[in-house]
Amino acid sequence: MAEKNTSLEGITVLDLGQIYNGPYATFLMAMAGARVIKVEALTGETLRGRGPSSAAGYPFTTLNQNKESITLNLKSDQGRDIFKKMVSKADVVLENYSPDAMKNFGLSAATLLEINPRLVYACGSGYGREGPHRDYLAMDLTVQAMSGIMSLTGFADSPPLKSGVALCDFFGGVHLYGAIITQLFERNTTGKGGIVDVAMQDAVLPTLASAIGAYYYNDRQLTARTDNRHPALTMAPYNVYQAADGHVSIICVRNAHWRGLLKAIDRPELLDDQELATMDGRATKMQQVDAIVTNWTRQHSKSEILEKLQQQGVPSAMVRNIEEILHDPHLLGRGMLKPVQHPIMGDITLMNSPINIATGSRVEPTLPPDLGEHNQRVYKDFLDLGEADLAQLIADGVIGRPGAEADGSR
Amino acid sequence: MAEKNTSLEGITVLDLGQIYNGPYATFLMAMAGARVIKVEALTGETLRGRGPSSAAGYPFTTLNQNKESITLNLKSDQGRDIFKKMVSKADVVLENYSPDAMKNFGLSAATLLEINPRLVYACGSGYGREGPHRDYLAMDLTVQAMSGIMSLTGFADSPPLKSGVALCDFFGGVHLYGAIITQLFERNTTGKGGIVDVAMQDAVLPTLASAIGAYYYNDRQLTARTDNRHPALTMAPYNVYQAADGHVSIICVRNAHWRGLLKAIDRPELLDDQELATMDGRATKMQQVDAIVTNWTRQHSKSEILEKLQQQGVPSAMVRNIEEILHDPHLLGRGMLKPVQHPIMGDITLMNSPINIATGSRVEPTLPPDLGEHNQRVYKDFLDLGEADLAQLIADGVIGRPGAEADGSR
Repeated sequence: MAEKNTSLEGITVLDLGQIYNGPYATFLMAMAGARVIKVEALTGETLRGRGPSSAAGYPFTTLNQNKESITLNLKSDQGRDIFKKMVSKADVVLENYSPDAMKNFGLSAATLLEINPRLVYACGSGYGREGPHRDYLAMDLTVQAMSGIMSLTGFADSPPLKSGVALCDFFGGVHLYGAIITQLFERNTTGKGGIVDVAMQDAVLPTLASAIGAYYYNDRQLTARTDNRHPALTMAPYNVYQAADGHVSIICVRNAHWRGLLKAIDRPELLDDQELATMDGRATKMQQVDAIVTNWTRQHSKSEILEKLQQQGVPSAMVRNIEEILHDPHLLGRGMLKPVQHPIMGDITLMNSPINIATGSRVEPTLPPDLGEHNQRVYKDFLDLGEADLAQLIADGVIGRPGAEADGSR
Repeated sequence: MAEKNTSLEGITVLDLGQIYNGPYATFLMAMAGARVIKVEALTGETLRGRGPSSAAGYPFTTLNQNKESITLNLKSDQGRDIFKKMVSKADVVLENYSPDAMKNFGLSAATLLEINPRLVYACGSGYGREGPHRDYLAMDLTVQAMSGIMSLTGFADSPPLKSGVALCDFFGGVHLYGAIITQLFERNTTGKGGIVDVAMQDAVLPTLASAIGAYYYNDRQLTARTDNRHPALTMAPYNVYQAADGHVSIICVRNAHWRGLLKAIDRPELLDDQELATMDGRATKMQQVDAIVTNWTRQHSKSEILEKLQQQGVPSAMVRNIEEILHDPHLLGRGMLKPVQHPIMGDITLMNSPINIATGSRVEPTLPPDLGEHNQRVYKDFLDLGEADLAQLIADGVIGRPGAEADGSR
């Protein structure tokens, strides 16, 4: 039996989102019980267009669970009229097109809010809809560069490096979710909707707090990248260490952690070292401290290391790869990961919403909808169209033919 | 005149958050108009304890804007009684202690929800409050290891590398914000609060979607780290390139981007190359494609490169450092960054909330409260205590003496 989260019951979203940023915001909404209708071009959303056999097949599948799909040609007058009629019955419109795309369609936020003053018009963008950088084309890779993340990642003598995960897209998406729900919460009091526009660059900026702290601390001098060490080099142990069978990360935030570590590695004589007893002292002797730790870690397996350190209350972890994560009993057990059968990809593991897990809602995943799968149902709900009307709209190229193939190569 | 965002007006938060994760969630709430009361131990919150002259001074300052501070000793019976009385008048309690800390204080979620069934009890943790890893001590560095981020960051022949920003702490924090507001939204209908518990590891997992896609695409084989290139190596150009005065990132998601790039770099003869005209063809010849791009970029400045590429509609950006970001006219102009004068740190630049910027709320930043700065006001509001009662509580060590110095070294 599919369970359902009902937190957002009664909220209807017209989802024009594409790739990661917008679709993650609406994924969180769909998983929390909103009705999310993915409004796709007749050729399908960009990510769908790459097809289930591509590297994009998995992200598309996991991000579009529990959504409905309709096709609609917003480049036609009829298509836009239909969209406006739907807006009058919706709570949220979401898009992450380039800044002027919706205006060029004749569907600007102002126009839609005039039709429905209770509407929350949500957009995701790279840099926001105002300011000198508004028209910069943004992808995760470019926002990682612009926002300073790359300048902080890597080795002192390596080029700047990206984080291996698409953090800008997803930070944008989850802040957009937060902004939408905040606006819906406020609407309960004011009765009014409004515009929310989350810039990916804004959304990642708070993650730089440590690095900015290090910059001010160093008398406003830029310092070299610090690989796996603390951005201000004021903490040790704080690093990734070689184990016999891989790597572990260890961090001692308090002096008690250091004392626990010395017990775990059986070096009680170092407890008497007054210099190493303080954070400043250890930071000054970072090389020596890291050598003491590595000396021990390289002789033990990751799991031995973890067991001994956790016993002594020292924050530590093993560096895990994708395979270990997809088979992690902890993540599977709490329902964050869920194995499903995909008709083309075979056995894959979908993700739940971190917010569902937070609220204890174990929603059964559904695979993403086929392109236009819900045309009939949705257009009936919103527009009261009969079979003949629908057939005419299909013939006119306003609505796609059911079962038409996605094509993202355009 | 200080403007105020009123989205969350009327919501009162008792904030036991520490370091980044919890405080970021309550930062977003404070900036959206909630009353956030930071409930600190008599020695102050961990991050405050490191002091304004440390590398932690800036993160503490920017994350605790617009909050009030009271001191309260939760280890004393009287302190716990006071906390319970406050809970009866609050909407949200937030904490990111280790899993059993609140229970050990006698202040478990169940106890507090019994006192106030409308309460949202919010906690941030590393791995959640259930499952085999619940007691693993978690910091950003360890969650980056456990969640797979490190295994994906770096070079094929380098050790696994952390992302240079504290993405796990902040992903945890913003999802926690989303979960709290969702629960408050639902409370408008049900009249009931509940528990929300966001695990940092859950919160970052969706950012691995591309990498998991690459894993499935490669017949479930783990591949080497791909530095600044696409995780599945299916896209080119997609890299960080050397410029004459630094680095730029360039990404061609569509064939039109490639054609635009060839125009920008004035290599029209390559438009006829049929192999390079398709994404698959370019991915196969990635080395050649990257050489074509680098040949051009290394001869030009970052700003020249950006200007030419943006003109042709090619997604691109310059790799910027902390200094460039803190002085970015775009971020300053839209109010995401705001210079202020700090009594000890001097001229520093605070951050606004990405959600405030999204809703157009330009809230004036206020520096974080001194430790216990609002004891008198808050205890009066909540408990109707007179001067003599307060003096007694101070004498009993239940409430701190105003102006006592923070001490995070314990």
